Amino acid sequence: MRDKTGGRSHRRAGAGRRQSPGGDWVWGVHAVLAALENPRRPPPQRLLATAERARLVPAAVAAKVRPEVVEPVELRAGLPPGAVHQGLAVRMGPPTPTPLDALATPAAGILVLLDQVTDPQNVGAIFRSAAAFGARGVILQERHAPPLSGALAKAAAGAVDLVPHAREVNLARSLERLDRAGWRAVGLDASAPVTLGETLDERPTVLVLGAEGEGLRRLVAEHCETVARIPLPGGLESLNVAAAAAVALYEASRPR
Amino acid sequence: MRDKTGGRSHRRAGAGRRQSPGGDWVWGVHAVLAALENPRRPPPQRLLATAERARLVPAAVAAKVRPEVVEPVELRAGLPPGAVHQGLAVRMGPPTPTPLDALATPAAGILVLLDQVTDPQNVGAIFRSAAAFGARGVILQERHAPPLSGALAKAAAGAVDLVPHAREVNLARSLERLDRAGWRAVGLDASAPVTLGETLDERPTVLVLGAEGEGLRRLVAEHCETVARIPLPGGLESLNVAAAAAVALYEASRPR
Repeated sequence: MRDKTGGRSHRRAGAGRRQSPGGDWVWGVHAVLAALENPRRPPPQRLLATAERARLVPAAVAAKVRPEVVEPVELRAGLPPGAVHQGLAVRMGPPTPTPLDALATPAAGILVLLDQVTDPQNVGAIFRSAAAFGARGVILQERHAPPLSGALAKAAAGAVDLVPHAREVNLARSLERLDRAGWRAVGLDASAPVTLGETLDERPTVLVLGAEGEGLRRLVAEHCETVARIPLPGGLESLNVAAAAAVALYEASRPR
Repeated sequence: MRDKTGGRSHRRAGAGRRQSPGGDWVWGVHAVLAALENPRRPPPQRLLATAERARLVPAAVAAKVRPEVVEPVELRAGLPPGAVHQGLAVRMGPPTPTPLDALATPAAGILVLLDQVTDPQNVGAIFRSAAAFGARGVILQERHAPPLSGALAKAAAGAVDLVPHAREVNLARSLERLDRAGWRAVGLDASAPVTLGETLDERPTVLVLGAEGEGLRRLVAEHCETVARIPLPGGLESLNVAAAAAVALYEASRPR
């Protein structure tokens, strides 16, 4: 696939983020500008730029945080080896959550709800697919979801700045509120009698994915209008949760 | 998703593999038996079993390698912290490649060809999706593909023992041979005018995926009968290559 933002292996050496106390470093022109333009991030702490790049920092950005002009070697010192910083890096806290009601209004399109999916790389990859397939947002559980920084932000390849997220204490209650707001919840379950393709329609839909191995918790599954499976003709019920999310988002975004 | 083999985060503590000189450790009853039953793996080097588990080792396995009866604490010592070994671990080399002609005969179903996809976790995840969607095999480039061990085998969650693979020196030549053998090559390219759903049909199909960022190399793309894109209504050409492979395998395995 051609891909403008770079992939995981490229990402190691490409634009990205590095966790540090008080915020992540975000580097590379595109990633830095997306982070600075994201109204859900707290104000930037430091903006480092090479002399050449500092002249190209938009005035709106420079008004938020004064670029510190540094030598390329100083810029590199704070970033992972091989990071393609393009002369620009910013340190800022991760994006803050959006209230569920704001995320869900108006009821249209696709939301993704993750029930205890905890692996940062999987959650990051799901943000990336959510951005690619145009999902409205991602709903995470308050207590069991990793922060949108470090490995998660890196796997998301910039998508944490493109897709808003909500953090909810009680996902069953969240599904009740989404139902009242006009959303239909479709849970993924490998043992469901119907397929995702048979189930999905034009209604506003929350795709609900559980942790691999555990599946959806009973109470969460009971709050889905229906559960559906991805047909796996190989016979192995063994799709990685990020792969399952990509397939579900693809199927949900297919014109009907 | 429910998933019998466990996910990435579970996998860390579940059945799996650990790289070591002379072979990986594979642990957990299901994973060990799949590795031992895989005719493409070299003979096992060591088989460790607890006393209780040793009595349950099939005679056919014990004939291949004498189980060494160990205390659970000894078994744990060689494995990652928290590994759910279920009293059984085997050390063996990774699966050996299958000749392309054997993999491609008869021409039917789906093959996956990876053009310089190098990240072990992405390649492992692609094996896992290939197993789930019933692909016939995975074709890798001899020089630019990681070994089927360590992080790759872990991400594959056992699929390296379920899906055979070929290693080819020249992928353009491989596509010529596959074409003569009755296979149709469909390359994924985000800028292609047609979609994968419009392009795929019942013919035996090789799905050809390039590295993220780079895309298919020109010569490889020219050896595809057609190139197609995954529609990304979010506007971001940013699907992770393993997510793209899952979607392509899903679309290719859809009944037509």
